[in-house]
Amino acid sequence: MASAEIIAVGTELLLGQIVNSNAAFISEELAANGIYVYHHTVVGDNPKRLKDVIEIAEKRSDILIFTGGLGPTEDDITKQILAEHLQKNLVEDAFHMNKITDYFASRNRTMTENNKLQAVIIEGSTVLNNDYGFAAGMFLKENKHTYILLPGPPSEMKPMFSSYAEPLLANDSAEKNILESKIMRFFGIGESQLAADLNDMILAQVNPTIATYAGDNEVVVRITATAKTKEEASALVNETEQEILRRDGAFLYGYGEVSLPELVTAMLLEKNITISAAESFTAGLFQAEIARFPGISKIFKGGMVTYSEETKQSILEVSPQIIKENGVVSAECAKEMANNVSRLCNTDIGISFTGVAGPDSLEDHPAGTIWIGLHVAGFETEAYQFVYGRDRNHNRRRAVKQGFQLIKQFLDTNR
Amino acid sequence: MASAEIIAVGTELLLGQIVNSNAAFISEELAANGIYVYHHTVVGDNPKRLKDVIEIAEKRSDILIFTGGLGPTEDDITKQILAEHLQKNLVEDAFHMNKITDYFASRNRTMTENNKLQAVIIEGSTVLNNDYGFAAGMFLKENKHTYILLPGPPSEMKPMFSSYAEPLLANDSAEKNILESKIMRFFGIGESQLAADLNDMILAQVNPTIATYAGDNEVVVRITATAKTKEEASALVNETEQEILRRDGAFLYGYGEVSLPELVTAMLLEKNITISAAESFTAGLFQAEIARFPGISKIFKGGMVTYSEETKQSILEVSPQIIKENGVVSAECAKEMANNVSRLCNTDIGISFTGVAGPDSLEDHPAGTIWIGLHVAGFETEAYQFVYGRDRNHNRRRAVKQGFQLIKQFLDTNR
Repeated sequence: MASAEIIAVGTELLLGQIVNSNAAFISEELAANGIYVYHHTVVGDNPKRLKDVIEIAEKRSDILIFTGGLGPTEDDITKQILAEHLQKNLVEDAFHMNKITDYFASRNRTMTENNKLQAVIIEGSTVLNNDYGFAAGMFLKENKHTYILLPGPPSEMKPMFSSYAEPLLANDSAEKNILESKIMRFFGIGESQLAADLNDMILAQVNPTIATYAGDNEVVVRITATAKTKEEASALVNETEQEILRRDGAFLYGYGEVSLPELVTAMLLEKNITISAAESFTAGLFQAEIARFPGISKIFKGGMVTYSEETKQSILEVSPQIIKENGVVSAECAKEMANNVSRLCNTDIGISFTGVAGPDSLEDHPAGTIWIGLHVAGFETEAYQFVYGRDRNHNRRRAVKQGFQLIKQFLDTNR
Repeated sequence: MASAEIIAVGTELLLGQIVNSNAAFISEELAANGIYVYHHTVVGDNPKRLKDVIEIAEKRSDILIFTGGLGPTEDDITKQILAEHLQKNLVEDAFHMNKITDYFASRNRTMTENNKLQAVIIEGSTVLNNDYGFAAGMFLKENKHTYILLPGPPSEMKPMFSSYAEPLLANDSAEKNILESKIMRFFGIGESQLAADLNDMILAQVNPTIATYAGDNEVVVRITATAKTKEEASALVNETEQEILRRDGAFLYGYGEVSLPELVTAMLLEKNITISAAESFTAGLFQAEIARFPGISKIFKGGMVTYSEETKQSILEVSPQIIKENGVVSAECAKEMANNVSRLCNTDIGISFTGVAGPDSLEDHPAGTIWIGLHVAGFETEAYQFVYGRDRNHNRRRAVKQGFQLIKQFLDTNR
C-alpha cells in the first residue's frame, strides 16, 4: 500500500500561532482512501530546511502532500523550492491568472505584481482549482513519487483536497486496499484495565489493529482493518468489535465522534423527558453541561446549586432531620435532593449530586466519596455511591459524566 | 541559540483522530524562552519508524521534545525506543510507583501489572512529575542533546511542561544570559485591538520582546528580556510593562499564572463576603467555576439555575409582572434575580445572568445579548448589558468571566 507524508510549510506553525489541523483533516481523508500516513512534518519558510525535508520524505514516503507556502509573499516558497529540487520550470496557469486579474479589474483596484505569483505552477503538474482563493494547487507525478501542493488556509485547502486532489489519488490507488475503522467509547473503566482485558487481542493484532487511548474520563478504542473491498474490511472490523463487546461491552456508551452528555440530551429530547438537577459539590457543572446544547430548553428547566447545608434546607427544602441522621454525604440526602428538585422544578427526572469533592474529607468520608440520586417519575428513587480519588476538579467532572451514564442506563433499560 | 524539534508519537494523530495541539503549545512556550523550533514531526507507534525519526532529529536539532507514548499499553513505546537508542536501562521511579500503587490500594482495586510501566523512566534522567496523571515525564542530557519526554494528554502535558520541564530548560541557557519574563493578563479588550495599540512597540521590539496571545476570553501579553544580570533584565521588563499599562492598563486584571475567577474568589475569601448566583443561560457555569477552589464553602452558599421562565418564577420568585413587562432579557429581570437569590440564599452578594446564549434570538433580542445583575448588601442593585456574538458556548463562558470582572471592579472600588 502507498504511504503518504504530510508536510506543512509555515513559520507561524513553528511559533505555535496556528495548530496544524490541516494534517488531521488530510490524514482522515487518506485513511478512508486506504492510504497510510506514516509521518507529519512541519517546517518553516526556510529554503534549505524545506529542501532537506523533501529529501527525507522522498526516502520514506510515496506521496508527499504539502500545505502552505503558495501565497503571494516573499516567504511563500513551497513550489519554488520543489520546482528547483525536481529541476522543473515554473509556468503560468491561465485559469488562475484570469481569475486574479478579473478580480482586481472588476473592483477597479490596482493589482500588485506579487499577486500573479499565485497563478504560477510547476511545469507538468495537473492544476488543482482553488474555489475559495487565488493560489493554484498542483498534482504531479515524478520519479515514482506523487507530489500534491495545497494552500495553507483550511477554508481553501479542504475543498481543493476533497474536490480535486482526492479523485486523482483514488484513481491511482484503485487497485489497492480499502481501510475501515471504528471508534468505540467506554465509560467507567480505566484505560489500563481495558487494555489488560484486551491484552491477548492487542498482542496478536495484525489486521485489524486495535488501539486504546484515554479521553476525559473515558477510554476510546479504535479498530482499523484493511481489505480489498469495503465489505471485507467492515467484516473484519465487526468481528473484532464483537469480541471487544463480549469482554467489556458493559462499559460501552457510544460509537464515533459523540460524547456521553450529547447522547443523553439527544435521548431526553427525543423522548421529551424533562429534567432538573440539584448539585452540591459539582456546583452547577452538570446543568452547565446540559445547557451546552441548543434547543435544550424543551426539556431542561433548571435546578439548584446547594453548596451549603443551609441552602440545602432553605432553597431545596431538604429536611434537617435527614441531614442530622445521615449527613449530607448519604444515600438519604441524595434521594431527598433528587425528589425535591424534580418536585420544585416540575420535571420528570430529578438528579442530585452530593459528596466530598476534596482535597479534604467531610463528615468522616474521604475525599472522592460521592452520591448521585436519581428520581424518575413513576419509579422508585435510587441513590448510587462512587468512590474516586482526591483530585477535586477531576472528581467533579467525573461525577457529572457518571450522572449522564446513570440516566443513559435508566433510559436504555426502562423505555 | 539552541534549536528544538517536537516529536509527537501516536498513530491516532496520523489517522487524523486528534489534532497535534501539543506542538503549538510547546512551540509558543519555547519561543518565549528564546529557543527556536525548526521542526515538528509526528510518527506512529512503530519502533522502526520512531527510531529513524530520532536519528534524523538528532542530526538537525539540539533539543528533542517527545509527546505521547508514555502510557501503560503495548503501543506506548517512546521511552523504550529512546532508551534502546541511547543504550540506557529503564528503572523504576519510586515517587510515581508509590502514587500508582497508593491509588489502587486506596480504592481496594486490583492494579494490573501494566500500570507500573508508567512509573518506569530512562536511567540517568531527571523525573518530571505528573500532577494530573500517572505517567512520569523525563528530562535527559546525553551526547550534546537534551531529550524531554512528556505525556500525550494535554491536561497532563501542559502542567508538566510549564512546572517542571521549562525551568530546567531555562536553567540550561542561564549561563549565557538571564531571561526574565512577565505575563500580563487583560480582560475586556480583543487581541487585535491590543496588538494595534502596541503596534509600534511590537514592530520595534528587540529586547525586551513582546508577544500577545489570545486566551479563553482574555488576552495575554508576555514581555521577555535578556541581560547579563537579573536586575538589568527586570528593569528592561518593567520599563516595557509601564508603557503597556499607560496604554491599556484599564483592561489589565492580573499578572502571571492567575485567572480572574481565582483572583476574585481569593478577594471574597479574604474579606469574608458571601455570594450566591442565579443563572439562566449560563446554567451553572459561574457557580461551577467558583466551586473549583478548595475551601470556598466559607463564602459560596449556592444558588439557582433558572433556565425556564417557569423556574424563574417558581424557585427564584421572580414576579410574573416583571417578566411580562420587560421580558427575561432585561435589566429589571437581572436585578430581580440578583436580589432574590441573595435573599433566598442569605448572602452579601447575589449575581445573576440572563440573556440569549444563541444561536437563535429570544424576545426579539439577537443572540449574544446578555444582562448581568449585581446585588451587594448596602448598595443599589445594578444591571449591566453586554452584546456578544452568536457562538452559544463562547457567549456563556465570556459572560461568566464578565461576571467575575464586575465583582472585581466593585471590590476594587468600594472596599
